[in-house]
Amino acid sequence: MATNRDITITEVALRDGSHALGHQYTVEQVTKIAKELDEANVPYIEVAHGDGLAGSSQQYGESLTDEMKLIEAAVSACTNAKIAVLLIPGIGTMTDLRKAHSLGAKMARVATHVTEADVSKQHIGLAKELGMETVGFLMMSHMVSKEKLVEQAQLMESYGADTVYVVDSAGAFLPHEVRERIHALREALTVHIGFHGHNNLSLAMANTLAAIEEGATRIDGSVRCLGAGAGNTQTEVLVAVLERLGLQSGIDFYKMTDLAENVVAPILPKPQEITKDSLVMGYAGVYSSFLLHSQRAAKRFNLDARDILVELGRRKVVGGQEDMIIDVAAEIAEKQQKGIKV
Amino acid sequence: MATNRDITITEVALRDGSHALGHQYTVEQVTKIAKELDEANVPYIEVAHGDGLAGSSQQYGESLTDEMKLIEAAVSACTNAKIAVLLIPGIGTMTDLRKAHSLGAKMARVATHVTEADVSKQHIGLAKELGMETVGFLMMSHMVSKEKLVEQAQLMESYGADTVYVVDSAGAFLPHEVRERIHALREALTVHIGFHGHNNLSLAMANTLAAIEEGATRIDGSVRCLGAGAGNTQTEVLVAVLERLGLQSGIDFYKMTDLAENVVAPILPKPQEITKDSLVMGYAGVYSSFLLHSQRAAKRFNLDARDILVELGRRKVVGGQEDMIIDVAAEIAEKQQKGIKV
Repeated sequence: MATNRDITITEVALRDGSHALGHQYTVEQVTKIAKELDEANVPYIEVAHGDGLAGSSQQYGESLTDEMKLIEAAVSACTNAKIAVLLIPGIGTMTDLRKAHSLGAKMARVATHVTEADVSKQHIGLAKELGMETVGFLMMSHMVSKEKLVEQAQLMESYGADTVYVVDSAGAFLPHEVRERIHALREALTVHIGFHGHNNLSLAMANTLAAIEEGATRIDGSVRCLGAGAGNTQTEVLVAVLERLGLQSGIDFYKMTDLAENVVAPILPKPQEITKDSLVMGYAGVYSSFLLHSQRAAKRFNLDARDILVELGRRKVVGGQEDMIIDVAAEIAEKQQKGIKV
Repeated sequence: MATNRDITITEVALRDGSHALGHQYTVEQVTKIAKELDEANVPYIEVAHGDGLAGSSQQYGESLTDEMKLIEAAVSACTNAKIAVLLIPGIGTMTDLRKAHSLGAKMARVATHVTEADVSKQHIGLAKELGMETVGFLMMSHMVSKEKLVEQAQLMESYGADTVYVVDSAGAFLPHEVRERIHALREALTVHIGFHGHNNLSLAMANTLAAIEEGATRIDGSVRCLGAGAGNTQTEVLVAVLERLGLQSGIDFYKMTDLAENVVAPILPKPQEITKDSLVMGYAGVYSSFLLHSQRAAKRFNLDARDILVELGRRKVVGGQEDMIIDVAAEIAEKQQKGIKV
C-alpha cells in the first residue's frame, strides 16, 4: 500500500528513547512497540542503543538486551515499516553496520559532530554499497554558523547521503535559527533535508514546524516524548499538528495516541518533563554528558553547576573535552573570589 | 527597585495550576511559592480557584482552602510582586472582587468566552473604580475569526481594560493563527496585548513567541508547566528563552528554576505531560470539561470518545452546552451503523 506523505517521520523512541529507559528495553517491549508503530503506518523506526550501534558500554550505559536482538525483533514485527539504525563512527563500526543490515535494517543514519562530517564517508559509502537508504546526521548543529553547516552537509551529500539532518542534540536552537539554517541547506543541497529536535527549551515542536516551513521533509519524532534530555518532538502530537496544518504524515493519529498512552507511558520510569537539568542543557547548549562532571566540579569549588555549564557552552566545548570542566570551574571560582561577575 | 522589562510575565501556577492539583493548595504551599516567585522578581502572581474567584463548587471542583485565605497569604508573602485574581462573570461576583481587593489584590483579570466580552463591562468597571489594574481575558479565542476577536477586544478596551489577552484555553492554536490574531489586535488596540497559552499541541512556547513577535508584551507562564490540560507555557523555560532572544523579563532564571525543581515539582500529583486526553482537547479545540461527558457517551453508544470530541469542536460547542454531547454521540453512532465515515 503506497502512502502519500508530505512529511516522512522516523520514530526514534527505540533509539533516542533508550536514554530515557536507561537502555533497558526488552525484546518483548520492542516487538510490541514496533508492531503498533507499523500498524499506525509509521514509515521508519530507528532501533539501536541510545548512542548508536555498539553504544552499550560502561561509559554510555550498558544495554539490558543486545541491540542486534532488538533490531531483529523489530524487523520481524513490521510488515511495512523499515528499520533504521544509528551509527556514530568511533563508537559503531562497519562490522556493526553489516550485521544490522544482515538482520534486515534498511536505513543507515550516520551521525557525526557537526564539524566532522568527513568521518562519515566510509560508513555512508558502505551503507550505499549494501543498498541501504542513507542519512547523514549532523549532531550539535547549533554550534556552528549556517555557512559551516552547509559545508558539512554538502560533504555528506557528496558521500552519497540521501538525506542530511540538522540535529539539535542539546535542544538549544531557537526557531529563527532553525529557519535560517534549513533555508540555507534547501538552497545548497539537492537531497532531502531532515530535522531532529529536543525539547529542552520547550521548542521541539516550534523548531520542527520552522524546519518544515523552510523545506525539511524528514522529521524525527518520539512517541510520548521519549528521548535524551527533555525528550524529542512528540510523535503523536506532531501527527495531530500536521493534520491541522493540512500536511499528510500518513500516520494514524488515534493508533499513535493509543500506543503512547497504553504501551509506552506505562514503561517509562518517569515522565518526560523539562527539569532543572534538561533546561540548563538547552540554555547552555551543551551535551548532557557534561552534567554529572559539572555537578562534581561545582561541589569541589563551591559553585553553581549551571555557571560551569553556561561557560562550557560559551567556549563551545564538545564531547571528549570533559577534562576542560575542572579548568573552567577553577577559573570561575577564582573570578568569583575576586568579585568578578561571571 | 524598578526593573526594565520587555515582557511582563504573570505567573499563573497558583490559579491555572490549581487544576493540576485538584484545587488542593494549602496556605503553606502558596506562601512558600509566592515568596520565592517574589524573590525571583516575578511582577504578577495570579491566585484564585482554577475557574476564578468563587470557582470552588461541586461542578468545578472544591478547593481545600478558601481562596481568600490563599490570596491573603500570597499578598503577605510578597514585597514587590502584585497579586492578580481571575474572575469569570457568572461564577465570581462583584462582591468576590471587592473582597479580593480588600485583601490586597492589585490586578483584576476579567474572563469571558471570546464572544461574550460585553458581560465583562461591570466587573472591569468596578476594578477600575477600586484602582486595580485591569485585564480583559478572551477565553477560547481560537473559536472565532480575527475580525470577531478584534471586535470583542475593542469592547474590553472600551470598558477600561489596561490589557486584553488572547487566551488559548484549549491549547488549540497553531503559531500562524496566533500571529495573525495578535497582529490584528496590535493594529486595532492602543492597550497592552497579552497571550495565555496551553501546551496540548506542544505549541505553548511556539505560540508565545509568535505572539511576542507580533507585539504582545504581557505573557502568562506557569512554573513547571502547572495548569489545566497539558499545562501552560513553562515560566522558567520562557525566562531562559527570552534571555536567549535578548529580551528582558526581569526574572531571575536560576531562582525560577530552583523553585520549579525544589518546591513545585514535589507537590505535583503527577508531572505535566501531553497525554491522550490533553492532546485530543487541543486537536479538537474543546474545553476539558467535555472530556468526561464524552467518555461516558462513548461508552453508551460504543464509540471512540475522540470522534465525539472532534465533532463537538467542529460544531463549536461551548461550555454550558454539555447536553449536546449525547445528541452528537447518537448521530455519530447512527452514521457509523450506516457505514458513513465520520
